[in-house]
Amino acid sequence: MEPLKVVLEDNEIPRQWYNILADLPEPLSPPLHPATHQPVGPEDLAPIFPMNIIEHEVSSQRWIDIPEEVLEKYLIWRPSPLYRARNFEKLLDAPVKIYYKNEGVSPAGSHKPNAAIPMAYYNKQFGIKRLTTETGAGQWGSALSMASQMFGLECRVYMVKVSFEQKPYRRMLMNTWGAECLSSPSEMTQIGRQIRAEYPDTPGSLGIAISEAIEDAVTSENTRYALGSVLNHVLLYQTIIGLEAQKQLEKIGVYPDVVMGCCGGGSNFGGISLPFVRDKIAGKQVEIIGAEPSSCPTLTRGPFAYDFGDLAKMTPLLPMHTLGHDYVPAPIHAGGLRYHGIAPIVSQLLRLGLIGARAFHQLDTFDAGVKWARSEGFVPAPETCHVIAAVVDEARRAKEEGKEKVILFNWSGHGLIDLTSYDAYLSGNLVPYELPEEEIQRVLKAVENMPKP
Amino acid sequence: MEPLKVVLEDNEIPRQWYNILADLPEPLSPPLHPATHQPVGPEDLAPIFPMNIIEHEVSSQRWIDIPEEVLEKYLIWRPSPLYRARNFEKLLDAPVKIYYKNEGVSPAGSHKPNAAIPMAYYNKQFGIKRLTTETGAGQWGSALSMASQMFGLECRVYMVKVSFEQKPYRRMLMNTWGAECLSSPSEMTQIGRQIRAEYPDTPGSLGIAISEAIEDAVTSENTRYALGSVLNHVLLYQTIIGLEAQKQLEKIGVYPDVVMGCCGGGSNFGGISLPFVRDKIAGKQVEIIGAEPSSCPTLTRGPFAYDFGDLAKMTPLLPMHTLGHDYVPAPIHAGGLRYHGIAPIVSQLLRLGLIGARAFHQLDTFDAGVKWARSEGFVPAPETCHVIAAVVDEARRAKEEGKEKVILFNWSGHGLIDLTSYDAYLSGNLVPYELPEEEIQRVLKAVENMPKP
Repeated sequence: MEPLKVVLEDNEIPRQWYNILADLPEPLSPPLHPATHQPVGPEDLAPIFPMNIIEHEVSSQRWIDIPEEVLEKYLIWRPSPLYRARNFEKLLDAPVKIYYKNEGVSPAGSHKPNAAIPMAYYNKQFGIKRLTTETGAGQWGSALSMASQMFGLECRVYMVKVSFEQKPYRRMLMNTWGAECLSSPSEMTQIGRQIRAEYPDTPGSLGIAISEAIEDAVTSENTRYALGSVLNHVLLYQTIIGLEAQKQLEKIGVYPDVVMGCCGGGSNFGGISLPFVRDKIAGKQVEIIGAEPSSCPTLTRGPFAYDFGDLAKMTPLLPMHTLGHDYVPAPIHAGGLRYHGIAPIVSQLLRLGLIGARAFHQLDTFDAGVKWARSEGFVPAPETCHVIAAVVDEARRAKEEGKEKVILFNWSGHGLIDLTSYDAYLSGNLVPYELPEEEIQRVLKAVENMPKP
Repeated sequence: MEPLKVVLEDNEIPRQWYNILADLPEPLSPPLHPATHQPVGPEDLAPIFPMNIIEHEVSSQRWIDIPEEVLEKYLIWRPSPLYRARNFEKLLDAPVKIYYKNEGVSPAGSHKPNAAIPMAYYNKQFGIKRLTTETGAGQWGSALSMASQMFGLECRVYMVKVSFEQKPYRRMLMNTWGAECLSSPSEMTQIGRQIRAEYPDTPGSLGIAISEAIEDAVTSENTRYALGSVLNHVLLYQTIIGLEAQKQLEKIGVYPDVVMGCCGGGSNFGGISLPFVRDKIAGKQVEIIGAEPSSCPTLTRGPFAYDFGDLAKMTPLLPMHTLGHDYVPAPIHAGGLRYHGIAPIVSQLLRLGLIGARAFHQLDTFDAGVKWARSEGFVPAPETCHVIAAVVDEARRAKEEGKEKVILFNWSGHGLIDLTSYDAYLSGNLVPYELPEEEIQRVLKAVENMPKP
């Protein structure tokens, strides 16, 4: 019988990341300066990121070596196992084989350390002493806290207020790894104080938290900012997921018909899918689908435009699908993936028809997540529940079409620190929220005035 | 370079559990009936456990086959990886090599499912429809909730009140797996109601929760009780840990000088160590050491006597090191491992000089745990912090003696659902509690009146 999981030895870990910029049929439009709207060069980014990371951001080299020091840390939990979800398959009773990469085996419980480790390493190499970042549900903040500690950097995390309050364990985890975690908007930055004065009841947003983290980085000594998603270098570092999955599937002679990931900023989706997009560009038949929340439908409803990454318009303008930089999902949404935009790379792939996207209601995602936990054991993060809902949906389609399908998806993390969301779901405190059409119209109108790529 | 971790393929998983009863130089004294003080036979245990499990409890067969249905579930996370703790070694700067079994990779985050899965399976086979159990910190209750769900059994968990209140995520996790979790003492049992009436402020104890779970099991239809530690069959099922570790160490040509585990009821310590005890009985040089909290010093201070497993004296009398069945650790103790007794097998091994034991203060255990998290990444469960403190201590000894040592220990689980304990530690709310000598004297006196094995 085919094994339940495919493991790789330490020495089988991929030694290079894959850079899709080398293979894109149409290059990305350049980021624009927030004030002048002129293309930004590496030097414009230098106050925010160290130059060795900026080089990765703009590189068009196809393969980039993973430094030994990074590999050493990766090996703490990588290569991550590839699983066959036999029990979930039985439950679905559809003609599908389901494989998943279990990124929940990392110490932080998600895929986020894949990017946090190299970022901490490169900042350290560049002489930086302190990192700032933002976090929504807390996965990224936890990962960067751990990575900073491992390379001897200080770390401060601005955590979106609503999550900070709903998920106290996340702060505790970051503290355990020696980092500082503040509720955002905070009193520590000008933009934070300004928003608190203007909107004392704001639940916060990733856009606000990013503004705070960047302000802190550019106004503090020896400090840089680290972003957990969206940018090219983040997706680059995450490709280790898809590269490992390809090795593992090859071992058992399988190639997927469908590759799936959940989509917030695009880091885990990009991580699993970009090596398969490469195959697709080269002519291989494979469907690649991102799953997002219907209350933050960036890919399925957001226009493609230049937009800021943050509320305070401190970041460059990025060419991406966006709901507008002031978009804040309804507080009732408990599933994470709340970012208003999505990676330019993912946006470009959608425009080029190389990937597709589907949106799911939160009740369907938690329903899928609970079914998963009760059959496969592992409790998925609320974010991960979105891709599980997409798998359920894909299985239903396969059954209707009477077509056999092999699905590969990225199980981006476990939900053991997010159990309050499950508690809300199981006790009936989540509602079947539907984004009001007037809100969509407001978004479309707001983005209409942004420059077009 | 030696790899950071040694993984086994699915098909390398051990197919049998190891039963130390076949090799004990002196057999265990039999359990006694709680009322008559006569040895109990299998039939006396039948209202509590199904007969197929009772057979394992009393078996003297050296190797017991693991059923295919159990192996299938084990393979969800087993074989668990064996790690080399290189970063922690660097921190200690002592002549030690440290290997650990990472049992935190299970869906429940600890070693407990190793026993929960076969228990749910055997109960199901025996026609049982519902399981009851108790849980302290929550590791066992979580594991049995998951296992029950996997085999279609109902499950109710009585959780020690102080933990129920300190660790709300544990209840949420059990609920997510479809189980019911009640604060103990509860209103659901006679003994629970009685204790609530008599001691309205009791923090609860494992002894009380066990009484409740057993009362529920013996007074409900198609229901049996499942115990997560102490008994022979539990340690038997846990030997999969040590058996895998032996295979993994053999692959890299290493044999440990010291094998360590933390000790509550003895399940994870027994799990890692019994296969090595077998080697030791056969003449191999290996030191085997259990680590326990100094506020519940069963092995290091508790006399060896017959004692009840629970407060209400419903269980048979077991021959074990015990602090008395009414012993309740001070509520300030945050580290788990609160049981008043310990497995008869572990007690017997200590009597025979085949193992040793050391006790650690809670501040030292959390100090070790935080150092571990900040170097190795994975955040250990508070219980696991005890064995890490023992490793720190052993490394110090090795340094003092100028002697090279290979240490193997069981990293019994992660602490991601126990972060409130870390929070209490990091914010200075834990005290360096020392068990008062008068309490020790009270214990010695209380146990003096129990029958002697």
